[in-house]
Amino acid sequence: MAQNIYDSDDFFKEYIQLPRQTIGLDGAPEWPALRSLLPTDLTGMKFLDLGCGFGWVSRWARDNGAVQVLGVDLSENMLAKARGFPADEAITYLRADLDSLELLPNTYNVAFSSLTLHYLTDLPRLIAQVYQALEAGGTFVFSVEHPLFTAPRRPEFIKDSEGYTVYPLDGYLKEGERITNWMADGVMKQHRTLATYVNTLIEAGFTLCAMDEWGPSDELIAEHPGWERSRIRPPFLLMKASKLFQQ
Amino acid sequence: MAQNIYDSDDFFKEYIQLPRQTIGLDGAPEWPALRSLLPTDLTGMKFLDLGCGFGWVSRWARDNGAVQVLGVDLSENMLAKARGFPADEAITYLRADLDSLELLPNTYNVAFSSLTLHYLTDLPRLIAQVYQALEAGGTFVFSVEHPLFTAPRRPEFIKDSEGYTVYPLDGYLKEGERITNWMADGVMKQHRTLATYVNTLIEAGFTLCAMDEWGPSDELIAEHPGWERSRIRPPFLLMKASKLFQQ
Repeated sequence: MAQNIYDSDDFFKEYIQLPRQTIGLDGAPEWPALRSLLPTDLTGMKFLDLGCGFGWVSRWARDNGAVQVLGVDLSENMLAKARGFPADEAITYLRADLDSLELLPNTYNVAFSSLTLHYLTDLPRLIAQVYQALEAGGTFVFSVEHPLFTAPRRPEFIKDSEGYTVYPLDGYLKEGERITNWMADGVMKQHRTLATYVNTLIEAGFTLCAMDEWGPSDELIAEHPGWERSRIRPPFLLMKASKLFQQ
Repeated sequence: MAQNIYDSDDFFKEYIQLPRQTIGLDGAPEWPALRSLLPTDLTGMKFLDLGCGFGWVSRWARDNGAVQVLGVDLSENMLAKARGFPADEAITYLRADLDSLELLPNTYNVAFSSLTLHYLTDLPRLIAQVYQALEAGGTFVFSVEHPLFTAPRRPEFIKDSEGYTVYPLDGYLKEGERITNWMADGVMKQHRTLATYVNTLIEAGFTLCAMDEWGPSDELIAEHPGWERSRIRPPFLLMKASKLFQQ
């Protein structure tokens, strides 16, 4: 079972102040890249939002033509916020642990997950669930914290002996639990290599369509000079995969 | 055009002393992983070896049933060594720059490249050449220096302020030329992100089959304790892709 840090009051109090929660999708700098991996027109589609949080993407999918949206999250806090927006009968919010979620087969056209899968303890199980839940031709798009971000004991930039800013990578090939103190102490994540994300998708039957090791554009850096450091190591990994065939 | 460092006498004098040249494939610790990505039986197949060096893999392919092998290298020094082994009329060695090589269409069953593609200045061109040179159903297997290895200004482990060994990553998202002083001064490589390798294959029409961010096994570390550090950041990236359809 994944840790439910979003229902820790200390964590949540900090978390809801992030731009991506107060402003919504425009507060998430990687959203344009993620959106570009999704179908441009969702008209008539069934959309699955895994780790839906406040439901920003669930509502976006609905606004872009999806006829049915299922938003799933483990956190009561998050779902309470999502349900605080005007109700739409095409959107259903479900409280469930993605580590044990069971989905109806051959149901969805698009499965989506933003910055959630790195909390799961059993990724192959969830990926297999998503695969069987998609219709043939369906698309799975997700983002996670980049493996370079989850790997080290201390994911913070340091200066080398010559004064250059570098990222102290360690433990990249040692997969498993990582404890960080981001917003709250003891946040538990699962570090996986990039190859593990790729191979888990392929072994489930998916065909890989695109990968984006997201970093800020020149325009974003002009606006937020501190983000230049993200070019040292990307913060997010975005992937798109398709269920081309019925297996 | 790729730099031809292997024809620099200083470089070559050092290079031919590496175990992977003196012993052959058993001197390359990643070879078992790379071999496992290749078809187990090459009987009747046509095999392309890009950056063939001394021809170790070209001869291995022949020994494993390939009926025709083309080994391509830019270096006269390397090809002279390859031609020093007993001749086999099924193996042809060709001197050519992979940045401008033209291959016959729909000819090969397997294309292979070991630790060569990170020297090329135009990777999409070569990948497209390989794609059109493979028969439908053909396989492309290659290794390169891992992007974590090619990225930094100084790819050497350092100690952090608490005495832990870390790898000072920088410039991961800044693709392009890197100059290192490995065996000789001024060795020129091209740094590309993992996403670029993946997307270049997909955009050429390939279906990704497997990725291996190679690190030493427990057995290898028991034999060579110094190799433990490779788990901090993998030295090699291995990939397998297929031409499933004729496009």
